[in-house]
Amino acid sequence: MKSTREKNRQILLASRPVGAPTTANFRLKETTKPVPAEGEVLLRSIYLSLDPYMRGRMSDAPSYAPPVQLNQVMLGATVSQVEVTRHPDYRVGDWVLAYSGWQDYAISDGTGLTALGSAPQNPSYALGIMGMPGFTAYMGLLDIGRPKAGETLVVAAATGPVGATVGQIGKLKGCRVIGVAGGSEKCQYAKEVLGFDECLDHKAPDFAAQLKQVCSAGIDIYYENVGGKVFDAVLPLLSTGARIPVCGLISQYNATELPAGPDRLSLLMRTVLTKRLRVQGFIIFDDYGQRYPEFAKEMAQWLGAGRIKYREHLIEGLEHAPEAFIGLLQGQNFGKLVIRVNDAQ
Amino acid sequence: MKSTREKNRQILLASRPVGAPTTANFRLKETTKPVPAEGEVLLRSIYLSLDPYMRGRMSDAPSYAPPVQLNQVMLGATVSQVEVTRHPDYRVGDWVLAYSGWQDYAISDGTGLTALGSAPQNPSYALGIMGMPGFTAYMGLLDIGRPKAGETLVVAAATGPVGATVGQIGKLKGCRVIGVAGGSEKCQYAKEVLGFDECLDHKAPDFAAQLKQVCSAGIDIYYENVGGKVFDAVLPLLSTGARIPVCGLISQYNATELPAGPDRLSLLMRTVLTKRLRVQGFIIFDDYGQRYPEFAKEMAQWLGAGRIKYREHLIEGLEHAPEAFIGLLQGQNFGKLVIRVNDAQ
Repeated sequence: MKSTREKNRQILLASRPVGAPTTANFRLKETTKPVPAEGEVLLRSIYLSLDPYMRGRMSDAPSYAPPVQLNQVMLGATVSQVEVTRHPDYRVGDWVLAYSGWQDYAISDGTGLTALGSAPQNPSYALGIMGMPGFTAYMGLLDIGRPKAGETLVVAAATGPVGATVGQIGKLKGCRVIGVAGGSEKCQYAKEVLGFDECLDHKAPDFAAQLKQVCSAGIDIYYENVGGKVFDAVLPLLSTGARIPVCGLISQYNATELPAGPDRLSLLMRTVLTKRLRVQGFIIFDDYGQRYPEFAKEMAQWLGAGRIKYREHLIEGLEHAPEAFIGLLQGQNFGKLVIRVNDAQ
Repeated sequence: MKSTREKNRQILLASRPVGAPTTANFRLKETTKPVPAEGEVLLRSIYLSLDPYMRGRMSDAPSYAPPVQLNQVMLGATVSQVEVTRHPDYRVGDWVLAYSGWQDYAISDGTGLTALGSAPQNPSYALGIMGMPGFTAYMGLLDIGRPKAGETLVVAAATGPVGATVGQIGKLKGCRVIGVAGGSEKCQYAKEVLGFDECLDHKAPDFAAQLKQVCSAGIDIYYENVGGKVFDAVLPLLSTGARIPVCGLISQYNATELPAGPDRLSLLMRTVLTKRLRVQGFIIFDDYGQRYPEFAKEMAQWLGAGRIKYREHLIEGLEHAPEAFIGLLQGQNFGKLVIRVNDAQ
């Protein structure tokens, strides 16, 4: 089912996954193209962002945000262009950051749209380095992690849009940066392109021992975005006064039950006490929305000066979003995962 | 073995406890009274503080402070008087806050002493409400807990020197304060004397259900000083953005192994993420030492105005310190536990 300008393709949540999602949890539907009323615009999706948090929205377990309802369009941020305008602030062809979800077309009255102008240089960056993932990296590291020169920073998913940005900002702040990634190709990229001091493959059987060796002076900041065995290896290496911003736990999102014992909850709390840890979760726009301009200004400067590098993993075609998302949860992407839904005008 | 002015009684760590300490882990020894050299003072202990942290120092597991060595004097804060002075800053009879440990006499060159003057009104308060426990309550609640009027604050060990102070400061800041204590007598005291809104008996079989009922709008601050089943009951009730200062885990100090599974470490981290919790451990003088004057000024005002109440549990005689300490770990004290080692001059 290819993109047209006559129909609106949508990807719906067909059923709630138990454990890892499968393509059977999604359904592609073709509907009529919506028509904007007075004061509205018709948006055509050009880029769709795929992000780990979407796994949470597929479940109806209590969380910080309501779930997607069954047979409704999967939610998600898009970079879209205005195709029809009946809104005084928008002209045909204007680019916007929107939350159209997994579909070709959406109607908006302007609420929640961010204008990107008529000819942005890298429109898809609004979904990554200049958007939610980049902002998440920036605030979590700087406001909770509080890096000081000479400290050791560990970050997993080191070539993903959050991890890569955390590590590069850490280097700008003078930290020794240890990345963790899946596979030698990603590790090589983290060291050679992103400038990390080390990057370890979490698939190595002696991963925990390797981490201990490269963090012989302890870990001052662990930026938590994966959980699971990476956190298990980090926990005994934390320094007194270490900070742990928690922005994601991708390794756990498909878990259907708690792991077998012993129960290490008390071990974690005891480590918090004896090491005086600060462990803090955050949801970027809820906690830090008012600081977006400060981030955007500094990040644009860093990007412009080549001090921060950014890699996208582009996949063509909305119909491939489900399998791309399933792969994201398995770490198959290499860089920020973005679906090119339609060609730009 | 009674107190004399000829000998120095000492309580030594005779062996390291496995699980709960017993009196066999301690040994009372009578030695010669030490003689101060030029530049030193001889201190006679009047009050000895017994505190939960001492359990950690009896073990040689890695912690934030080195352990007491076997056959050495148990460590601890004392309020002492100068009996002999060869130091220009101290006169006979002066009161000081010292770290003499569990013994009648100690020598000091002045390092680490805090002068309390020649006639303090309540000298033993320096071990409690005006000292480490009060300061711990104050900074943990105000700097990490950040109470706002109308929020719900839960604190355990509600009649202990930390918990009672946390709850009363919470009331001064406009919080709804829920205490947790062992037994109806302590609960009644927390409500009627300390002014808590509620106080629940953690020994009640339906304690978790009771807590859920009285915290129907969620828990905004949980001041953690006990751990164990109180924390288990608190965890599912935490509100979005809740803060958890962690100053102690008394229920776990005697644990010899981790509890059976399932492993809830990932559950805790997931709650940190989805509820955006801030969980932070601290060691009061290491983290906040420079803010002691600010605390002392405000607490003295509150005490003087009767806005903070303080209860001591005094036990006569150094020889009773081991059994009193063992009881402290079981919650048998009612108020700040202090040993009256010797009569004042």
